[in-house]
Amino acid sequence: MKARIRVTLKNGVLDPQGKAIENALGGLGIPGVAEVRQGKYFEVDLKETDEAKAKATVEKMCKDLLANTVIENYAFELVKA
Amino acid sequence: MKARIRVTLKNGVLDPQGKAIENALGGLGIPGVAEVRQGKYFEVDLKETDEAKAKATVEKMCKDLLANTVIENYAFELVKA
Repeated sequence: MKARIRVTLKNGVLDPQGKAIENALGGLGIPGVAEVRQGKYFEVDLKETDEAKAKATVEKMCKDLLANTVIENYAFELVKA
Repeated sequence: MKARIRVTLKNGVLDPQGKAIENALGGLGIPGVAEVRQGKYFEVDLKETDEAKAKATVEKMCKDLLANTVIENYAFELVKA
């Protein structure tokens, strides 16, 4: 199975990188952008084929390594490889 | 509308950060990980409400700024805010 994991900053946490992208888009003449937030993205190939077990593994992975749960949220979806 | 944009390295492009995560997961005792690839993730709030126009704007954004199309792929989905 493959897990697609998104890690994003929680609301209220400053995101200077997102702001920089917002400004750059303005500079490139791309209009209509209200806000940009940058996050991280991971694709993890798992050997596990059982969905429930894969979910538990990915949860653990996110909590222990990929996301700092004090300031970040994570979300993921599992897809059949 | 909100765009969720994922930028990933193309197949065959080395991803040392992904390899480092793979090793770290092994060190944490999380088994069954075949491969990890790291990418970037952006959430863009658009003022545009027309889906076709929003799609064109996000395409332009990805090509001009967010992704280096020589070595990276991008994919996005639009969701109603």
